[in-house]
Amino acid sequence: MIELGENQYGKSRVRLMKVERGAPQHRVFEWNVEVWLTGDFTSCFLDGDNGLILPTETMKNTVYSLARGSSAKNIEEFALELIAHFLTTQPQIDGAGVRIRSINWSPIRTSAKTHARAFIQTGPEIATVTATQSRSAAAKIISGLDQLTILKTAKSAFSHFKKDKLTTLKETEDRLLGTAMTANWTHTRASSDFDTIRAGVRDALLVTFAEHDSKSVQQTLYAMGKAALESAPEICCIHLSMPNKHCNLVDLSPFGQDNPNHIFVPTDEPHGSIQAAVRRGE
Amino acid sequence: MIELGENQYGKSRVRLMKVERGAPQHRVFEWNVEVWLTGDFTSCFLDGDNGLILPTETMKNTVYSLARGSSAKNIEEFALELIAHFLTTQPQIDGAGVRIRSINWSPIRTSAKTHARAFIQTGPEIATVTATQSRSAAAKIISGLDQLTILKTAKSAFSHFKKDKLTTLKETEDRLLGTAMTANWTHTRASSDFDTIRAGVRDALLVTFAEHDSKSVQQTLYAMGKAALESAPEICCIHLSMPNKHCNLVDLSPFGQDNPNHIFVPTDEPHGSIQAAVRRGE
Amino acid sequence: MIELGENQYGKSRVRLMKVERGAPQHRVFEWNVEVWLTGDFTSCFLDGDNGLILPTETMKNTVYSLARGSSAKNIEEFALELIAHFLTTQPQIDGAGVRIRSINWSPIRTSAKTHARAFIQTGPEIATVTATQSRSAAAKIISGLDQLTILKTAKSAFSHFKKDKLTTLKETEDRLLGTAMTANWTHTRASSDFDTIRAGVRDALLVTFAEHDSKSVQQTLYAMGKAALESAPEICCIHLSMPNKHCNLVDLSPFGQDNPNHIFVPTDEPHGSIQAAVRRGE
Amino acid sequence: MIELGENQYGKSRVRLMKVERGAPQHRVFEWNVEVWLTGDFTSCFLDGDNGLILPTETMKNTVYSLARGSSAKNIEEFALELIAHFLTTQPQIDGAGVRIRSINWSPIRTSAKTHARAFIQTGPEIATVTATQSRSAAAKIISGLDQLTILKTAKSAFSHFKKDKLTTLKETEDRLLGTAMTANWTHTRASSDFDTIRAGVRDALLVTFAEHDSKSVQQTLYAMGKAALESAPEICCIHLSMPNKHCNLVDLSPFGQDNPNHIFVPTDEPHGSIQAAVRRGE
Repeated sequence: MIELGENQYGKSRVRLMKVERGAPQHRVFEWNVEVWLTGDFTSCFLDGDNGLILPTETMKNTVYSLARGSSAKNIEEFALELIAHFLTTQPQIDGAGVRIRSINWSPIRTSAKTHARAFIQTGPEIATVTATQSRSAAAKIISGLDQLTILKTAKSAFSHFKKDKLTTLKETEDRLLGTAMTANWTHTRASSDFDTIRAGVRDALLVTFAEHDSKSVQQTLYAMGKAALESAPEICCIHLSMPNKHCNLVDLSPFGQDNPNHIFVPTDEPHGSIQAAVRRGE
Repeated sequence: MIELGENQYGKSRVRLMKVERGAPQHRVFEWNVEVWLTGDFTSCFLDGDNGLILPTETMKNTVYSLARGSSAKNIEEFALELIAHFLTTQPQIDGAGVRIRSINWSPIRTSAKTHARAFIQTGPEIATVTATQSRSAAAKIISGLDQLTILKTAKSAFSHFKKDKLTTLKETEDRLLGTAMTANWTHTRASSDFDTIRAGVRDALLVTFAEHDSKSVQQTLYAMGKAALESAPEICCIHLSMPNKHCNLVDLSPFGQDNPNHIFVPTDEPHGSIQAAVRRGE
Repeated sequence: MIELGENQYGKSRVRLMKVERGAPQHRVFEWNVEVWLTGDFTSCFLDGDNGLILPTETMKNTVYSLARGSSAKNIEEFALELIAHFLTTQPQIDGAGVRIRSINWSPIRTSAKTHARAFIQTGPEIATVTATQSRSAAAKIISGLDQLTILKTAKSAFSHFKKDKLTTLKETEDRLLGTAMTANWTHTRASSDFDTIRAGVRDALLVTFAEHDSKSVQQTLYAMGKAALESAPEICCIHLSMPNKHCNLVDLSPFGQDNPNHIFVPTDEPHGSIQAAVRRGE
Repeated sequence: MIELGENQYGKSRVRLMKVERGAPQHRVFEWNVEVWLTGDFTSCFLDGDNGLILPTETMKNTVYSLARGSSAKNIEEFALELIAHFLTTQPQIDGAGVRIRSINWSPIRTSAKTHARAFIQTGPEIATVTATQSRSAAAKIISGLDQLTILKTAKSAFSHFKKDKLTTLKETEDRLLGTAMTANWTHTRASSDFDTIRAGVRDALLVTFAEHDSKSVQQTLYAMGKAALESAPEICCIHLSMPNKHCNLVDLSPFGQDNPNHIFVPTDEPHGSIQAAVRRGE
């Protein structure tokens, strides 16, 4: 017998630009929103009965309509507002999820001044949130940042590792360590000062990355996660993914030149990929 | 107390081109390989002890070394070969995983002939596999295809759906239905004729997509998954993700023109996203 | 004194899907259109006088409106139709240009049949055209193809090249030769059977690539261009850009393995880039 | 008769990371370099004689070898150094060209301090240079910046434009104006303080964008180019390309809501594209 398994449906890449027109300073928020709903939609999948299916077009409309009246100060609050709306207005669903990616715009600063109504996009770092809630449980809120692209030119070694007959990597006490990091931290409460937590977590990650005396990506990752948890009692877990952005030392000896860690080839592939969760235990 | 949670490490984007030099016909395989290992690496994360860490560089070397001697006929067999190698040679690990994405190259066909040693890349469709195995269990093999980009110009409706006060979508009995599909099917055995199963699943998906009288993406998705399962008793489950590639009808009435489903705007964002598993029940 | 130099304005990424609803076979055309206009717009740039500026939004509308009534059988004819429209209706302009990129959709073929109303996108190859016309001259039509991604596993050498003290490349009589080619050919007449010419040029390029006994990318490029010109008396010039898609032989000797041109690493960067025009001389 | 036309060959996507190890502050430069050579290579194209062909692999080696000993303080100086090297060492060439794209890395700033040896990538803005030189002429140096992604929320109108029967755009006195700008300015001398000029041009562009009372993209573009020229007497021309990053006002009236320029949909396609040169006249 063949049957329907887990399923969800929703709308992706709903792009929203919201302008707060203060006097004099404006603010702009650019959010890329994904919404999805879950529930028992068997009749739709098996029989083509669309009676329980709210169109994904309506989900898109909902993002814009709620944004107009929303007092959400950040992506976490707006995600929760969207979820609450769907759980309230759609009795046919069991749960809802929202993911938001926020592109950063900063006021333009020039020799003249900081301009109140002109902005420059900065990145590649992106702020993110994924929030989900089912009728039977509290909301789960995972905040994050993506593409935090960082590099350190000192205090990074990788040596005394395991070797087998296919190992060719040389040990090093001084290499470049770079990554385009993804971090995701889980909140223990649905109501928090998400911006303050975010600023603290980000700062803890960066201070530790910069200052840690690294014996491996793994060791630095753990230290970063630990520092993030210590910065924010409101979070219970942080997951870090640190793909290695390798910078390979160029061998200039065929040309009669030395290369004491000055000239490197940055490469995107292949790359190492280290990921781990760090959490509060019992 | 802060502690280490789930973790893994490995190498991504290991690119391999393998040429089989038959006489006269050559064959080329282009695979993008990801390898990862799991186990108790606490000492590395907490103390910077790298004694249990096989470098990711070695994983890359292993892909090329094994490929040279391998008799694997497809990505599934090569993934299993890599996993077996790591479980055998690395007693410190508990499990290993391999993901392969295969880019398709076909012999060039011209007015002259089918050329035996010249090839053209075709896509965007990609064949994929994700295989994982821990010491305590059998391998889990999920084959798939990605970016199967398909479109039907008839037999697709979407009407009688749920409406609320934010719903603006019009009902339609005749629309374009397009998607860039991802499919993943789970094998029940580690030893199968993976190529035959793949061909059967793909054919079943395509026949059903083309011929199904669709009342919704959901209904068509389920019919496609059901047909795939019926084509291959060796698989127990298939997961389909069908993002809507919307083609919006252009309103030409401001210009005094009709538009009986001839002129559309294809859009990538926002897009609906429907996903579900179809499986054999009890 | 500061003054305005060369300028143009227009609309890019206007996406059009046109469905021809034959009985029984449908056809779909997906075109990405760019339109631009030139003329004396000094008053707009210097004084903010928009009286001569047709909005780019109108250019977009024009693409859809003309497509509805168009009998163009290919991208070249549609480009010329758009240009003629703007030159006729906009007396303030001196010239117009149109670039179209065509994504290929083929009927789905399955074990059941060739489906008349379901399609699969194929690529990465793209058909292109760039047409321009000023009031004082005939239209210039350059047809092309882009991302024709091809590879040969025999008949490719590169040796006896120039060396200096920074040269480390080894000579080879047998290497893989791959490229993602761009070709652009110039028509001598505004009215031709563009599809037949395109088919002939493409076939000539592929036959020559496959069969040429290559001493360098340069030599093969020239032979391909020459064959293309010989296939189509209606074109006077062809420009070929052949970035090398390098496949580097893996050195397996550290692992005690040979590698007689079987195992390669495909790389996207860095890459060689060879480009040249081949043309009819006096 | 068929003959060879214009041609060039070279190496693209040569990636270089250079670390300056000051005490205490390090600096990192990430450059993506393209090199090409021109000359009479007819014998290679027509006869397969590679005797005049320096391999592109050697061009790559040259980038790294020269970078080691270079005292170039910016991408312009390094481009000129590479060109001089090839013109000096390769008598068979007539000319050489170099293009460099520079990815920006800034010291990480945290609550603790500005870290001397840890960096964060910032963008999407990229600094660029294209330099070319033939034996018979002085070097031509065009500096630029790419993907300067900026947005203004006030002082932007577009009205009183030309209309035809396909025009649907509404006039507006208050819209969002956004662009991902490309700018390229031509130096009149091969020896200048390129960094100071760059800083001045960039500042002039940003101040003008922010403060200009815009009646059209065209008018603002011209004002920006004029300000850039006035900031730097060492440049004779600047070319600006300003693709419109449209933010479309959402119509919330179907939901009984107003929208006084607060809620927008940012879109990437289709987009307007305005480009012009601004230069010193006679």
